[in-house]
Amino acid sequence: MAQLRAFESAKRTGRAIPEIVCFEKQADWGGQWNFDWRTGVDQHGEPVHSSMYRNLWSNGPKEALEFAEYTFDEHFGKPISSYPPREVLWDYINGRVERSDVKQYVRFSTVARWVEYDAASETFSVTVENVKTGATETERFDHVIVATGHFSTPNVPQFDGIATFQGSLRHAHDFRGAEDLADKDVLLIGASYSAEDIGVQAFKMGARSVTFSYRTAPMGFDWPNGMEELPLVTSFEGDTVHFTNGAERRFDAVVLCTGYLHHYPFLRDDLALSSPNNVYPDGLYRGVVREGSDRLFYLGAQDQWFTFNMFDAQAWFARDVILGDIELPSAEERRAHMDAWLARFAKLESAADQVRFQADYIRDLIEQTDYPMFDLDEVVRIFLAWKHDKQENILTYRDKVYPSVMTGTMAAAHHTPWLQELDDSLERYLSSPEPNGVERLVGDEAAAPVTTAVSPAAS
Amino acid sequence: MAQLRAFESAKRTGRAIPEIVCFEKQADWGGQWNFDWRTGVDQHGEPVHSSMYRNLWSNGPKEALEFAEYTFDEHFGKPISSYPPREVLWDYINGRVERSDVKQYVRFSTVARWVEYDAASETFSVTVENVKTGATETERFDHVIVATGHFSTPNVPQFDGIATFQGSLRHAHDFRGAEDLADKDVLLIGASYSAEDIGVQAFKMGARSVTFSYRTAPMGFDWPNGMEELPLVTSFEGDTVHFTNGAERRFDAVVLCTGYLHHYPFLRDDLALSSPNNVYPDGLYRGVVREGSDRLFYLGAQDQWFTFNMFDAQAWFARDVILGDIELPSAEERRAHMDAWLARFAKLESAADQVRFQADYIRDLIEQTDYPMFDLDEVVRIFLAWKHDKQENILTYRDKVYPSVMTGTMAAAHHTPWLQELDDSLERYLSSPEPNGVERLVGDEAAAPVTTAVSPAAS
Repeated sequence: MAQLRAFESAKRTGRAIPEIVCFEKQADWGGQWNFDWRTGVDQHGEPVHSSMYRNLWSNGPKEALEFAEYTFDEHFGKPISSYPPREVLWDYINGRVERSDVKQYVRFSTVARWVEYDAASETFSVTVENVKTGATETERFDHVIVATGHFSTPNVPQFDGIATFQGSLRHAHDFRGAEDLADKDVLLIGASYSAEDIGVQAFKMGARSVTFSYRTAPMGFDWPNGMEELPLVTSFEGDTVHFTNGAERRFDAVVLCTGYLHHYPFLRDDLALSSPNNVYPDGLYRGVVREGSDRLFYLGAQDQWFTFNMFDAQAWFARDVILGDIELPSAEERRAHMDAWLARFAKLESAADQVRFQADYIRDLIEQTDYPMFDLDEVVRIFLAWKHDKQENILTYRDKVYPSVMTGTMAAAHHTPWLQELDDSLERYLSSPEPNGVERLVGDEAAAPVTTAVSPAAS
Repeated sequence: MAQLRAFESAKRTGRAIPEIVCFEKQADWGGQWNFDWRTGVDQHGEPVHSSMYRNLWSNGPKEALEFAEYTFDEHFGKPISSYPPREVLWDYINGRVERSDVKQYVRFSTVARWVEYDAASETFSVTVENVKTGATETERFDHVIVATGHFSTPNVPQFDGIATFQGSLRHAHDFRGAEDLADKDVLLIGASYSAEDIGVQAFKMGARSVTFSYRTAPMGFDWPNGMEELPLVTSFEGDTVHFTNGAERRFDAVVLCTGYLHHYPFLRDDLALSSPNNVYPDGLYRGVVREGSDRLFYLGAQDQWFTFNMFDAQAWFARDVILGDIELPSAEERRAHMDAWLARFAKLESAADQVRFQADYIRDLIEQTDYPMFDLDEVVRIFLAWKHDKQENILTYRDKVYPSVMTGTMAAAHHTPWLQELDDSLERYLSSPEPNGVERLVGDEAAAPVTTAVSPAAS
């Protein structure tokens, strides 16, 4: 969607743009934000793309992901809170491209099956299948942009005896809602965002207990009663799980929050990116251009602090390479450029370091295109404040609000504290219920009082 | 495995056989019988192949699937019961090929990515990926045999409001065991083998209630208290499900037993088979040779009453076409041959008709090769007796025994009635526990008394 908007933006300035075809496996766009109740494979036998669950609300402030050239103010016409639910964020990214007249370029329900590069003609032959009709087609393209994301193919490790576990067992990718974890003893294996958020959702929905298992280090939040962190699982024995510290516990449900794999089954190994999930995957010049090619691009291949606006910065860069406005340096110069950034990447020590690194990376991209520069240092401050909020109270951080970096508009306090809001819909979110019109309340009245308006604090 | 064994069998008679490469996505062979605790995608991001669950025992008599040239007697050296659990059947099919020295032909952990036919050279270029290393390779072959099966890609229909269902929701493909359905109200959508067997397994494991929903006709078994059939689901409303007859029920768990799709993502539409699941898919000459090609074969593409021995009959036929022992008739003659069988297929009215049709189909194949002919009419009688047994008591039919069509050996009565056997392992199955050494008993002592030895009755 960022790439389509990037070309559309050039077109509006009078530039000629190339013929564009966007192949999208799903029936609608939005990628990760296009919620699907299905798990495993979809109605056409293709792996389900989205890892989204019903209860998901943004786990970072929207002020950190806002598009520089399409603001929340422009879309909603009024201030909204800093942590909207998934339907609201889908509405935002959909609204931008709906207003851009770019749907004409997209062939929906069309999956990329196989891509071959022909060095002689310097073209790609791209074979796709219309999953509705089964028809296969092959077309030639001068450039290919891989924008399939890398949070769709679960990384599912083996644990001794896991096949003997008889309760509910799934990877976070196949998690669709926390409601059926009520009254359950729940184990989340992992210590990153999936574990943190699914654990908190399970707590919100009334899980009897929530246990996290970490490999390297605990998340270390100030967990309420009923939530705890244990080191790594060593083995399963039926419903009993053993941990490296000798602990053993019985569980009703396990969610493997063990991350995702880069997976490009439509590309040969010399074109497919192979990397762990990190903020500077090797093999991408400026994080975008595939090493060994002038014609193959990746968007969003990085681990992500920044998201939507980083994708924009990358899409504008790829666009200008394709339009010839940016000339790519020699292979050696590109390699040296990657090595310099990788050296810097290797020295990052903290999450805060990573955020600053990614801000610098984005700044470097935006400086080369006409994408509107924005105050990246201010976004870094918001990220650090967010981390501080979470440390303070992992159950209430979503009630905080931040000002827009793009417009200065202060986010609105949401009408209902997140912990008490059981309706995740756009309609409910944008409504203005009476102060005591909250239809359903969770039992935990002892939740910490909510601060409804704070400014981001530098840290 | 049938195809490898077919070539090995020719080799043993002194025939020269072609160079064979078998690409297998999984780390071991056995296909559907290679149980995997994983659901969705595997550790390499590939869709999990097997639809097998822990509790699965053969749902048809083993005497109907026995290989004509590798008997249960030969493998186990003693009579076993007629309905073995999955580990025992895997042991049987694995044993045959382990003794055949054919593992050398198999490249495990290697997925077929893309197959192109080149008409000029009359060869296929087959691109595969080693999922462990990520390495891509392309090789040329004169013939391709598609033996990927068609019970791996779930058919998952949409129902109004299903996204609002908050309990456990999965397709039968992702069902791994019935233990966590204890004390649950369970809905199975479907009226074929998956629904029947998962429903019965749920009952065995103590489900509070088991409800089936059929589209066309109920299964009509004499269900015990706690099991019932309703017509089709019209919609979901949270945990409440509405049916076409006006009924509404609340459920904790839903299993979509809605069948599987033919799915060949590595083939172009002119090579991929496109068919509903039936006993005579159009487009396959003698059910094996892809229309429009002399060089592309499918094994097991039919809906299956017969299984292992039908795959053998097909593999021996494909082998002899490839070896030049069987000459394919003209395209017109093949079309006429298919049309004649399709006309007969169109007239089938009952399940018994389908069984007889498939027996005739297999007989026709075996008559053209050196595969040992066996008494297909006797297998038909066993199938009909099996259907009769199920009508009589769907909970105890697995306690019946049949004689081998191949050796005449009468199956052994199993040491424990199926309904009371909670240990599905090979070790337990092959053991000889003391008469009162049954370690665990299910509560239902009122289950019908078990007849331990009956002969198949014609019907």
